[in-house]
Amino acid sequence: MSFGIDDLPVRDELRGKSPYGAPQLDVPVRLNTNENPYPLPEPLVERITERVREAARHLNRYPDRDAVELRTGLAAYLTRTAGHPVSAENVWAANGSNEVIQQLLQTFGGPGRTAIGFEPSYSMHALIARGTGTGWISGPRGEDFGIDLPAAREAIAEHRPDVVFVTTPNNPTGNAVPARTVLALYEAAQAAKPSMVVVDEAYVEFSHGESLLPLLDGRPHLVVSRTMSKAFGAAGLRLGYLAAHPAVVDAVQLVRLPYHLSAVTQATALAALEHTDTLLKYVEQLKAERDRLVAELRALGYDVTESDANFVQFGRFEDSHAAWRKILDRGVLVRDNGVPGWLRVTAGTPEENDAFLDAVRQLKKEQSA
Amino acid sequence: MSFGIDDLPVRDELRGKSPYGAPQLDVPVRLNTNENPYPLPEPLVERITERVREAARHLNRYPDRDAVELRTGLAAYLTRTAGHPVSAENVWAANGSNEVIQQLLQTFGGPGRTAIGFEPSYSMHALIARGTGTGWISGPRGEDFGIDLPAAREAIAEHRPDVVFVTTPNNPTGNAVPARTVLALYEAAQAAKPSMVVVDEAYVEFSHGESLLPLLDGRPHLVVSRTMSKAFGAAGLRLGYLAAHPAVVDAVQLVRLPYHLSAVTQATALAALEHTDTLLKYVEQLKAERDRLVAELRALGYDVTESDANFVQFGRFEDSHAAWRKILDRGVLVRDNGVPGWLRVTAGTPEENDAFLDAVRQLKKEQSA
Repeated sequence: MSFGIDDLPVRDELRGKSPYGAPQLDVPVRLNTNENPYPLPEPLVERITERVREAARHLNRYPDRDAVELRTGLAAYLTRTAGHPVSAENVWAANGSNEVIQQLLQTFGGPGRTAIGFEPSYSMHALIARGTGTGWISGPRGEDFGIDLPAAREAIAEHRPDVVFVTTPNNPTGNAVPARTVLALYEAAQAAKPSMVVVDEAYVEFSHGESLLPLLDGRPHLVVSRTMSKAFGAAGLRLGYLAAHPAVVDAVQLVRLPYHLSAVTQATALAALEHTDTLLKYVEQLKAERDRLVAELRALGYDVTESDANFVQFGRFEDSHAAWRKILDRGVLVRDNGVPGWLRVTAGTPEENDAFLDAVRQLKKEQSA
Repeated sequence: MSFGIDDLPVRDELRGKSPYGAPQLDVPVRLNTNENPYPLPEPLVERITERVREAARHLNRYPDRDAVELRTGLAAYLTRTAGHPVSAENVWAANGSNEVIQQLLQTFGGPGRTAIGFEPSYSMHALIARGTGTGWISGPRGEDFGIDLPAAREAIAEHRPDVVFVTTPNNPTGNAVPARTVLALYEAAQAAKPSMVVVDEAYVEFSHGESLLPLLDGRPHLVVSRTMSKAFGAAGLRLGYLAAHPAVVDAVQLVRLPYHLSAVTQATALAALEHTDTLLKYVEQLKAERDRLVAELRALGYDVTESDANFVQFGRFEDSHAAWRKILDRGVLVRDNGVPGWLRVTAGTPEENDAFLDAVRQLKKEQSA
């Protein structure tokens, strides 16, 4: 055996683990990582180029450490789209919502503290908890993948977590959590500890409902996290952000790495914010395609979880990994998230979705035969 | 009092703390953050623009999670300049060397573990230790700011740290650590635990001596960290990297946030690597200016620490903060790192350095008067 990870003095909890990440396979139709299938429009590409050229001319200097212009732009976007006034001092940005969450756990979680999520949910919450030394509590969900409020309240009362994650729309199941449920969880969390409640709205622009941003009013322990990866079609940019009470924004700055957000990232994100209207039109197309996927999968006889995201969870399979493989054999990569009996497909272009629907139609025929 | 950080359930060790970062003041001559004073040459700005335009066309997709092309380019640069063969599997990159160090501490430090640095040194090592729940041990330095090997060995034997930081050239003092001292510390660290030894070579391109990369041979617990912020004149890019045994590169991937390095960052860094020869010419100019600063400060009667970096530590002042303020009053911003009696000045352009030397010449006159 050659010298490997286990020969190094790595932390015990990392031994035998694998890096997080979906298989990156070279197949014709990739519907596995909830990417937006539409490339940025060419005028936006040109605007990014212009802004980055300007930033590159000052690249020998550190970037704006506080990213004030970018946070102002993000605040304006939130104010306009969520109908709730948000200012730059309510907003913080980092390299992807993963880094936002990492900073929140370094500030409010960490050694000797715990965080809870209601699973299945976005698996990075638990992984970032591990990476920051935060104890992880796997909270329950109902049979329909909704949050079972009495059970969730009981888990919060029992474990008294320092951080409560609520992902809405939830990933990988796709369903949204009603505002009244989030409020009830917030109250339960305050009664138990008080704890911070982090609402992960990575997919909210695809929702039939509203953002929970207005709930921030008068709730300084509430945080809403967002990303430009999905609705803005900019997964490659790695720009996540949060909205919260200004004290929360001040607090995460105690753990953020100084100058964490590069000048090219700030320039690119600012360019994308100038083109919000165009990008949100793609979102409308994707919502229609998502609804079509739900309808056609149901027509084929699949079980489908209600979706407010740009992806759809469908089943049920006796062996979901075998089904994943058979869909892949037809050139379509979907995601096996390890939820027994279920798979997840991202809403792609109409052509990609047709290819996916063909693949599952054949799969259904085989299974009926 | 309005609602603030201390009203939130932040971790106890963060209470009363301030975010890290030098004052960002608007003065004519800024020589306080060791930035490279030379803007990137225009052909490189254009090359960055081209590469980013291409990356922006695929920005809806996640970036290469493993940054293979970039790591290959960094490995080629190290092989060529340090005269030691390094391949992509030896190299890992992140958003600034701060993130590299954070990932190393998440992997090899963390709760229940400790790290040591020999202070004064780069203060982010201790801060990132705090942010990752790693216990911090402030190891000693000698009177001349060199590493006092017997005292350092004794500290390692006593505390048995999991991670040992050696910054060379050291920041903020500027002096380099001889290879034989690093080897002795490595041996001491292996005898005590064994621990990982992280050699922080952020400023090595400005050194009179050689990189310690060849020491990696046969030492799988040794890591050399680097940055493009200084020699590459790209502080705004936030690109740090490390070279080590491939097992170390595999290990940090257990804690890295997936897709941590954006497509625009990767594109920009790759463009800069194409222009290495031009950028290294600026490094030669800065080394000459650094040597001039050392000589002229000494001629003025200041004490100056030997410098292998792009900055110079000078003193001694009865009240270094008062001296910092007086230099600032003359339009020149230097750094007060909290080393009693000493200040640090970055080597700027010849004109900037002249302005600085004028300021300290007047300061000297006042003090003699």
